[in-house]
Amino acid sequence: MSRLTLALDAMGGDIGPRITIPASILALERDPTLSLLLFGDRQQILPLLSSAPNSIRQRCDIVHCARVIDSRQGISYALRHSKETSMRLAIEAVQKGNAQACVSAGDTAALMGLSKILLQPLEGIHRPALISTIPTVTGERSIMLDLGANVECDAENLYQFALMGAIFAENTLNLVYPRIALLNIGIEAVKGYKSIRDAADLLKKDTALNYIGFLEGNFLLNGKADVIVTDGFAGNVALKTLEGAAKNVISLLKSDKKKSILSHVFGYLIKYLFKDKYQRLKQINPDQYNGASLIGLTSVVVKSHGSANIEAFAYAIADAALQARRQIPQKIFAGLNKNEILMK
Amino acid sequence: MSRLTLALDAMGGDIGPRITIPASILALERDPTLSLLLFGDRQQILPLLSSAPNSIRQRCDIVHCARVIDSRQGISYALRHSKETSMRLAIEAVQKGNAQACVSAGDTAALMGLSKILLQPLEGIHRPALISTIPTVTGERSIMLDLGANVECDAENLYQFALMGAIFAENTLNLVYPRIALLNIGIEAVKGYKSIRDAADLLKKDTALNYIGFLEGNFLLNGKADVIVTDGFAGNVALKTLEGAAKNVISLLKSDKKKSILSHVFGYLIKYLFKDKYQRLKQINPDQYNGASLIGLTSVVVKSHGSANIEAFAYAIADAALQARRQIPQKIFAGLNKNEILMK
Repeated sequence: MSRLTLALDAMGGDIGPRITIPASILALERDPTLSLLLFGDRQQILPLLSSAPNSIRQRCDIVHCARVIDSRQGISYALRHSKETSMRLAIEAVQKGNAQACVSAGDTAALMGLSKILLQPLEGIHRPALISTIPTVTGERSIMLDLGANVECDAENLYQFALMGAIFAENTLNLVYPRIALLNIGIEAVKGYKSIRDAADLLKKDTALNYIGFLEGNFLLNGKADVIVTDGFAGNVALKTLEGAAKNVISLLKSDKKKSILSHVFGYLIKYLFKDKYQRLKQINPDQYNGASLIGLTSVVVKSHGSANIEAFAYAIADAALQARRQIPQKIFAGLNKNEILMK
Repeated sequence: MSRLTLALDAMGGDIGPRITIPASILALERDPTLSLLLFGDRQQILPLLSSAPNSIRQRCDIVHCARVIDSRQGISYALRHSKETSMRLAIEAVQKGNAQACVSAGDTAALMGLSKILLQPLEGIHRPALISTIPTVTGERSIMLDLGANVECDAENLYQFALMGAIFAENTLNLVYPRIALLNIGIEAVKGYKSIRDAADLLKKDTALNYIGFLEGNFLLNGKADVIVTDGFAGNVALKTLEGAAKNVISLLKSDKKKSILSHVFGYLIKYLFKDKYQRLKQINPDQYNGASLIGLTSVVVKSHGSANIEAFAYAIADAALQARRQIPQKIFAGLNKNEILMK
């Protein structure tokens, strides 16, 4: 893997450095050619790094900043008062070329707002979108966008999401001619919003894209489509509903009030006997699917869940590294420029 | 329980009478004061009833009809050609007062269209909605609407859904002052569509309703709200996403390629040891949550899943019976007429 430097907002997320720094150490252990610029309060970060081996610490640079973004008074206030915050400085490091991608678990709207201003949408992209990988029961992965960046979308926005999503899927999931579906409330041509039906017409015209039709919410996890396209409202509702359902099922399975020696013994045997199932259930663990990305910008920006744990935040870092190495923004720009439907 | 007659579209659903008739027998066994009018092909229905005891068969009247609704050529074609179909005749039986509620697993759009025409929305209701019960991890139930009847909704539509939902929850879940939430993509006041924010303002003004704020998709199953209000697009996506997630998890747990005597023995022990968990997982079984209802009409209409199995369809019948006995339409009408926000 090629050498790469990521800019990390160490202060973002519900817990801040106590998650982001151990996650950084984990990500650096797993990726020996990765370096990190850690933006945040040096006093909080340093002690958390002290236990890491020298080979890890050498690949971390702390950039001290005392301020953190504050979105409690609304997004426009947050953006106006973003100077010298860990999130803004991390994005600026990408803007200046000191890092190749940015990761934050901070406020989504602030991250999106600052990224749009500082990193700019790719020329021709009307609306950058939030994209994420979702698990499927077949063991494959699908990707879905938009997940909340754009509440209302017209047909061309949805079409651009499909194009970006296909390039994202080709390059991160290593798929050829990925199957694209539009999320809808039925599979018949008359269903849903006019914008969705019009987007379907645009997609059908484009033979370079493998459009397979409408997909309903109950098939999101079935691996029927590689790229699931939707507006930001429905996408956000669907993704959060999936996450909630998965977390609830997992917590039901984990929580056991009758902790006895017997149940431990049987627990072990269950795991042995039902290994396949447990493996597959584990795939639906949202930890492994942390990290939505802002797509359609000139650089890679990954948004971790605010409530991400160490493992989940480390996944978000690895995800940003993969996207930067695969040069997703450059490939989307190239894809846009050879697109016949958008260019005419 | 008071005597009650329901009209059943015996031909609806993916399988038709082979599901609806055994389900009818089950529902009649469980509810000794229930009678059914079965609309459909007598030749198909009769043999399926023959095994039932006399006490059950006496409470079934078959109304032969040779035609079934056909929505393959679109909804307007289906409605224009609906005369003498099992679905239409079942609804007409309610219209004429021969039955107190209708149950069908047929096409949702056709059922909704015919019900609106024949049974009429309650005076003052702008948009009838699809409502359903969803499980929660706390073991309670929540209800959600709209689930697909109205793709686009304004603030007053959403407010009316909240009012209808609250009355539905009070009367079917036996709740006092049920907690109402609006499904949104964040909990901050600025999030989501303008219609949702405006509906929130209306709900805050109404002290007769217990409005608690926005709810995100990941908390749908957590029992934080008793009534979850949304437009038909997001509601349909959310409900189907939940159903898909639940079905996938259940099928992962059920499917076992290593069927050995050992695994059967351990399966039994697991069920014994982890009884609580299995009970709670079972509560998320979509079979027990079959039956969305059309709410806002002058009579009760319950729509079963097209893919419902016998148990699930029997639940839909029991659900219709409960709503008719509790006089939900009459209570909604009364609630509308004393509502200060809608009446001014």
